[in-house]
Amino acid sequence: MSKALSLDLYELTMAQAYFKNKPDAYATFDLFIRSAHRPYYVACGIDDCLNFIEGFKFSEEDLGYLKDLALFEDDFLSYLKKFKFRGEIWAVEEPEIIFPQEPIMRVSANIIEAQIIESIVLNKVNLATTLATKAARIILSAKGKAVYDFSLRRTQGVEASLAAAKYSYIAGAKGTSNVLAGSLYKIPVEGTMAHSYVMSFDKETEGFLAFANAFPAKSIFLVDTYDVSRGIKSAIKVAKIMKKEGLDLLGIRIDSGDLAEYSKYARSLLDQAGLIDTIIVVSGNLDEYKIAKLVAGKSPIDAFGVGTNMGCSSDSPYTDVLYKLVEINIKNKGFIPTMKLSAEKLNLPSRKQLFRSYGRNGVMLSDSIGLFDEKIKGKKLMRKIMDKGVILCKEKDVMQKRDILAGKIKAMPSRLSCLENNYIYPVKISKQLSLLTKSLKEQLKKRVFD
Amino acid sequence: MSKALSLDLYELTMAQAYFKNKPDAYATFDLFIRSAHRPYYVACGIDDCLNFIEGFKFSEEDLGYLKDLALFEDDFLSYLKKFKFRGEIWAVEEPEIIFPQEPIMRVSANIIEAQIIESIVLNKVNLATTLATKAARIILSAKGKAVYDFSLRRTQGVEASLAAAKYSYIAGAKGTSNVLAGSLYKIPVEGTMAHSYVMSFDKETEGFLAFANAFPAKSIFLVDTYDVSRGIKSAIKVAKIMKKEGLDLLGIRIDSGDLAEYSKYARSLLDQAGLIDTIIVVSGNLDEYKIAKLVAGKSPIDAFGVGTNMGCSSDSPYTDVLYKLVEINIKNKGFIPTMKLSAEKLNLPSRKQLFRSYGRNGVMLSDSIGLFDEKIKGKKLMRKIMDKGVILCKEKDVMQKRDILAGKIKAMPSRLSCLENNYIYPVKISKQLSLLTKSLKEQLKKRVFD
Repeated sequence: MSKALSLDLYELTMAQAYFKNKPDAYATFDLFIRSAHRPYYVACGIDDCLNFIEGFKFSEEDLGYLKDLALFEDDFLSYLKKFKFRGEIWAVEEPEIIFPQEPIMRVSANIIEAQIIESIVLNKVNLATTLATKAARIILSAKGKAVYDFSLRRTQGVEASLAAAKYSYIAGAKGTSNVLAGSLYKIPVEGTMAHSYVMSFDKETEGFLAFANAFPAKSIFLVDTYDVSRGIKSAIKVAKIMKKEGLDLLGIRIDSGDLAEYSKYARSLLDQAGLIDTIIVVSGNLDEYKIAKLVAGKSPIDAFGVGTNMGCSSDSPYTDVLYKLVEINIKNKGFIPTMKLSAEKLNLPSRKQLFRSYGRNGVMLSDSIGLFDEKIKGKKLMRKIMDKGVILCKEKDVMQKRDILAGKIKAMPSRLSCLENNYIYPVKISKQLSLLTKSLKEQLKKRVFD
Repeated sequence: MSKALSLDLYELTMAQAYFKNKPDAYATFDLFIRSAHRPYYVACGIDDCLNFIEGFKFSEEDLGYLKDLALFEDDFLSYLKKFKFRGEIWAVEEPEIIFPQEPIMRVSANIIEAQIIESIVLNKVNLATTLATKAARIILSAKGKAVYDFSLRRTQGVEASLAAAKYSYIAGAKGTSNVLAGSLYKIPVEGTMAHSYVMSFDKETEGFLAFANAFPAKSIFLVDTYDVSRGIKSAIKVAKIMKKEGLDLLGIRIDSGDLAEYSKYARSLLDQAGLIDTIIVVSGNLDEYKIAKLVAGKSPIDAFGVGTNMGCSSDSPYTDVLYKLVEINIKNKGFIPTMKLSAEKLNLPSRKQLFRSYGRNGVMLSDSIGLFDEKIKGKKLMRKIMDKGVILCKEKDVMQKRDILAGKIKAMPSRLSCLENNYIYPVKISKQLSLLTKSLKEQLKKRVFD
């Protein structure tokens, strides 16, 4: 089976109903975040969508399976055989700082084409945005100290582990422990040693020495297998032996206990022993709040290894992404805006543009969501990125995206990135869009029921 | 690159240190859950590990990348070229009800082989166990009513979506919306329609009719796009037209609002219209607590479509799985048990067996973790499943695993599966294992420091 089958069954049943009833309808869908679990989001995954959509094709095997379901008619299956996405996509530049209700991606295409890609587009933007957003929070909390992705063992699968490594690097991490991610995305790979390594030797110093022999310039000793205080002393003992051979111990890692206290204690012992360049790495269930506290307390920590909480965004493991019909054109009757009316789940109709205003210092002031052709002050964030099913510009690499995001994060108001602050960034709905929403609501109430 | 590189860099650096220092050491690692975020776990993912391990092999491209890192010596890279896992694995039968500290899998092999598979084994058991456990909680809360996996759009990637569909089916779900999962695992696929579908028609009844024409026997109308009450009436209107042609409306779906109230209202209207067989499906941010409340309130709901919360186990998106060295044999000096001493992170040493006692009614009474060859009453849950790197028995299919788990869930004490109860299932540490743990602790304190 091919990945084209990565869709909810209803995309295909709806497609068959469209195929029978209005095969030429042209639709526009908006992809956006519904509700704010986070004060800001780092929208990512758009390029993943484009690559998937450009290559989207059902295989013979896929079609055989669909036929066996005995749900679909032969002419519709013949249509799927030749299926290709030929529509137009607009989106913000990835990665982008984004807020709920703001359009992230807009898909305009034949309604069947626009519908069939729904599930996978949501899945990809959800994964990438969830992990990039969490990583940005964690990395900002470290205030310039190094953060490494150590999450492979606790991510929701290998695909998610690659996304965790990639998007945390884009968000500013210094590297990852994930070798496959390192090789695929050209991200620096880093690592220390496990407790099991230390335990496999009779004595702690024996294990440290063996490691130093194997990696003279790259050794970071894990000191908390048995007793942190004594572990630090074992590390110093071996560092002194290394020094006699002209080698410097790169670092130690503390993975448990009171990291603030232990890091201070370790720093003082290391300094006393003349090991002023030996770094202190800490790990162990870290998140943005714990890191912020350690940094605020001036703990002499050089690097944070962050696993589980960053790699699966454990406090908020998904983003409320939606893909909603905002406009439809049937039989060339003209483009008609649409929206849902369900009380809690209202969405903004019509093709839209996102406008962002900046202060003189380059800091973001406010956003406006307006109609696509409305004249509103501010930078237009939505650009065309796919036309007739073809990607318009080459994907930027991970390093370029990292630089772009660094610039955008710098432009964020500091109140927004502060963990304690409940600042809500101003996102306005333009007057014309508000008016349209209001009048459409009334129109729909009259029109849609018999 | 191949999936063999799905490992933390330190697995390889430690491996090189072992290679240089004790290439023939033989180690045993236990895979277990550290802490109880859930009152019970459904351990899964063991077969995924076995399949991965049996086929584990570094490709030429992988080795080229590793060489380019300038971390590894040529003789070690040559060793990796021929690397194959040749060890022995014991594990509980998948799927199995399991509790923290209990061994799920035990790997005994050359220390390099046992070390290199660590990251991927943890990743796979974490993903499968996290999702199977959450799905079991949700399905149990539905007390026999149908639960469907609708999570594809909110899982952490496509791989995770497949795991969500597969493990929720094993846990007792009736099917999934995920077509790829349906095709790969032979799971029933189901779906209804989206709000966008309804919105793409001028009138609600027009959309319903078009769908009924495309799927006469399989139509479930989504009734809350504009107004639930009027949507139900639209569905009934179309159902009456269908009836004239001898067709029955399969169901309606409500995706927002007060599901308890709306389902009762819908049922009464449907019944009044003679549509007593038309089912009511509900969805919309459901989890085990909301479902339990709806079921307890006797809401006339026939099926629950559960997405996000089941598909990424949103309230607890990872399981605290660990892989710890419990025994080592260097230069045939004999098998020496080991353990960590870090206060919060102690683990049980040595090769172990898990014993489970049942009452006369077949209900689980208590578990004992003992030494491997200890004589303890109860069923031995750990069996050998891999020998010399070869899988010993054919993997059971998804349907067989579903039946096995249904039996095991039936044997769970009802206090354990009850959401409100804080019952802690008794897991005992055997006398011999306790004594060994205590004496080893003292021994290690004396031995490991210079």
